[in-house]
Amino acid sequence: MSKGLPKRSEDYSQWYNELVKRADLAENSAVRGCMVIKPYGYSIWEKMQAELDRMFKETGHTNAYFPLFIPKSFLSKEASHVEGFAKECAVVTHYRLKNAEDGSGVIVDPEAKLEEELIVRPTSETVIWSTYKNWIQSYRDLPLLVNQWANVVRWEMRTRLFLRTAEFLWQEGHTAHATAKEAMDETMQMMNVYAQFAEEFMALPVVRGRKTANERFAGADDTLCIEAMMQDGKALQAGTSHFLGQNFAKAFDVKFATKEGGLDFVWGTSWGVSTRLMGALIMAHSDDNGLVLPPKLAPTQVVIVPIYRGEGELESISVKAKEIMTELRKKGISVKFDDRDTHKPGWKFAEYELKGVPVRIAMGPRDLENGTIEIARRDTLTKETFSLSEMSIGEKISSLLEEIQNSIYSKAFQFRTEMTTEVNSWDEFKKVLEEKGGFLSAHWDGTSETEEKIKELTKATIRCIPLDRKEEAGKCILTGNPSVGRVYFAKAY
Amino acid sequence: MSKGLPKRSEDYSQWYNELVKRADLAENSAVRGCMVIKPYGYSIWEKMQAELDRMFKETGHTNAYFPLFIPKSFLSKEASHVEGFAKECAVVTHYRLKNAEDGSGVIVDPEAKLEEELIVRPTSETVIWSTYKNWIQSYRDLPLLVNQWANVVRWEMRTRLFLRTAEFLWQEGHTAHATAKEAMDETMQMMNVYAQFAEEFMALPVVRGRKTANERFAGADDTLCIEAMMQDGKALQAGTSHFLGQNFAKAFDVKFATKEGGLDFVWGTSWGVSTRLMGALIMAHSDDNGLVLPPKLAPTQVVIVPIYRGEGELESISVKAKEIMTELRKKGISVKFDDRDTHKPGWKFAEYELKGVPVRIAMGPRDLENGTIEIARRDTLTKETFSLSEMSIGEKISSLLEEIQNSIYSKAFQFRTEMTTEVNSWDEFKKVLEEKGGFLSAHWDGTSETEEKIKELTKATIRCIPLDRKEEAGKCILTGNPSVGRVYFAKAY
Repeated sequence: MSKGLPKRSEDYSQWYNELVKRADLAENSAVRGCMVIKPYGYSIWEKMQAELDRMFKETGHTNAYFPLFIPKSFLSKEASHVEGFAKECAVVTHYRLKNAEDGSGVIVDPEAKLEEELIVRPTSETVIWSTYKNWIQSYRDLPLLVNQWANVVRWEMRTRLFLRTAEFLWQEGHTAHATAKEAMDETMQMMNVYAQFAEEFMALPVVRGRKTANERFAGADDTLCIEAMMQDGKALQAGTSHFLGQNFAKAFDVKFATKEGGLDFVWGTSWGVSTRLMGALIMAHSDDNGLVLPPKLAPTQVVIVPIYRGEGELESISVKAKEIMTELRKKGISVKFDDRDTHKPGWKFAEYELKGVPVRIAMGPRDLENGTIEIARRDTLTKETFSLSEMSIGEKISSLLEEIQNSIYSKAFQFRTEMTTEVNSWDEFKKVLEEKGGFLSAHWDGTSETEEKIKELTKATIRCIPLDRKEEAGKCILTGNPSVGRVYFAKAY
Repeated sequence: MSKGLPKRSEDYSQWYNELVKRADLAENSAVRGCMVIKPYGYSIWEKMQAELDRMFKETGHTNAYFPLFIPKSFLSKEASHVEGFAKECAVVTHYRLKNAEDGSGVIVDPEAKLEEELIVRPTSETVIWSTYKNWIQSYRDLPLLVNQWANVVRWEMRTRLFLRTAEFLWQEGHTAHATAKEAMDETMQMMNVYAQFAEEFMALPVVRGRKTANERFAGADDTLCIEAMMQDGKALQAGTSHFLGQNFAKAFDVKFATKEGGLDFVWGTSWGVSTRLMGALIMAHSDDNGLVLPPKLAPTQVVIVPIYRGEGELESISVKAKEIMTELRKKGISVKFDDRDTHKPGWKFAEYELKGVPVRIAMGPRDLENGTIEIARRDTLTKETFSLSEMSIGEKISSLLEEIQNSIYSKAFQFRTEMTTEVNSWDEFKKVLEEKGGFLSAHWDGTSETEEKIKELTKATIRCIPLDRKEEAGKCILTGNPSVGRVYFAKAY
């Protein structure tokens, strides 16, 4: 199965594309830039969704659903938002087709032109704030803590499965508050929820930071983000949380009666993560044999493969395998017994390596005699012979899955640490960026001009101003002007 | 709160519209025909989704995701499908906006016209079968059992919240099989899954039947359906399951190598239910005071309202209320304690009646003294005083919720039975349809002409040919021609 998967060291980009397709995660569709998320890929996304949804609800949010379409005029209402979003998007201009007169198929009915064009949502701030205007009258209606799971469309010219597609799936939280502080606390809270999800479930260490004005969401006063490091030394923005100030409230005239009897514009936030996380998950941990999935997000955590000749052997192994399955399921572990006779064990081993199943158990007739099984870890590709009398198989696999989850995280953490370099001169900056990549922790003078100049010269952008950076006087890497602390530069997806 | 909700007997349609809005289920958006599903409404939909998704998975299906857009040419590939679906739909013609030169906002960039227009999916058979062509080569790839949760758009001219909206949420199952029998079995299985869901969770009795050729899905060889009866005597199609024959396989050239070494077109099914079920749920059970929700789909099953004067009383009641909540949660019951001091108990009672919370517990200082609580049922509006020493509160409420679930079903079942009338002459048909409504069980000669004539004359359509109908020779209600069994006519949503 994995035969011929390109090596990361040779062509990382091709390795990624092939892996996504061969592991049955996603593929390109007949519609330019739109992907099909295949069942196996979708089942990983569902696990992500379930955990995130739980975390959103635990922090007091409820789900709702807002329209797919946005009237064109809405986009113009928030000045900087339209600059950032109105450009590359799908525009609905007509609402009917009709049969072509020459019988060649269907054509757009010119009679059915919309008075105002509709935009397929690239993000929903405008349509949601136009709704909030009716939902919010008084401080008693606040805070309003709503999330939506939805599809959005941004007409990207260069697309890549999961990382950048014209249509993608995401969640977008949109909250409204009575004070700036409350809204800023929410912005921070949701960035932390994302960070916790990435680290705890995706086994992906992230830098928590703040975007520069240049990289901020169009319409936000402040954007917090989590940034992850991929195996090729490029950074990936994995989630953003925006403090919208009163910008959208002003654009859509959303005011509330304050506790003190006044009238004020509402404060807002929005925050989102998308199927892009799938790309991050794949690129962060996988290897030349295929996917490596953290157990907490693996649709199947354990696969049992029987090694047998003839029906008799299979039957005896099956009895034992089913006992093991029962034990594992009691512990909440998802397990599959692959007794297909259409494929050889070796083929199955390669298939489950490609698919990233964290633990593989193999059982042959000799194991049966000896009361043993072979346990193989996907992440380290190591094997051990385990005696079933040693301890309960449920305990054994539970603790192994936990160990694997932690080990994948540690490996990624160590990699990121190695790939984070303090640089103190422009020459060093260029050299490290070219030869090593990763995060470059460097001083910057705080101006957009310098930021743009560096991007122009090197393609590196400021990924974020880390929230935990230390106050440290220094000189800008490019201009030598004074700086109050280091920021993280990187080339990015 | 519920003051002023129109009465069902006076204006059923207005009652429904007002109820949907006041109970915070949904509202119209700024985009014509598109609704906003509000948090409370969405939380009911989520419960429906969770149960359906579980049932789909238990019958071997997995979820996936296919593109929102369909190339226009795809729609023409299946001849009868295009007739049924290509007409009223949202058409994307451009992919970019630009700033208007006069600074008045944004306009569609005429340079960014798509070569081929894209249709926002009204249903996904075409895009999915174009994908299946690559997924299916051999009988080993079959059956393919895939479901998708998605939004779809059909440009309806007259819309109604949940019942008929331009955009709606649904699930669409699309399966592929090696034989006609297997595909027909699947079609039947999924119709039965829908029926079971409607009856067991929605407390909604349904007629399981087959559509006539006229009412069949465009592109199907056979359509099975479940039909429900609303309180105003109109029928509502609650779910459909289609046997597609080899129609889409032929349209998209999806062939497979058979076990016997031949090559054959694949057999298909598709099946779906949508947010329309929300409309059915509301209309089937609710009353002039508001929503009546079956406990299995109620986001909050029990609310506890304290009746108190002053902090001291509230505190003592709170202690007891929290004990009760702990007991109920142990039983998996969702419970809320409404100790807001901004609203009076009477106001809260009306609010929870409007929202359809199945059980309300009220507790005052005298209850505390006596070790009692007042338990009120939403469905019957009856109250009882319950002594907490009598039996465990968890047991009590568990069995009460079960009783309510069953009672709501029985009431709807009895209503439907009363509203199903055998009619044997054309005069009787017209009289019953006008004066009573409901299902009219009548003989029909089996021709589309007669079916259309009856529709033209009375607006009644054949809802279905019940699967359990008895063989019974008779004469067509309109033409007097021979008939082999009765079908169900009704006016319908």
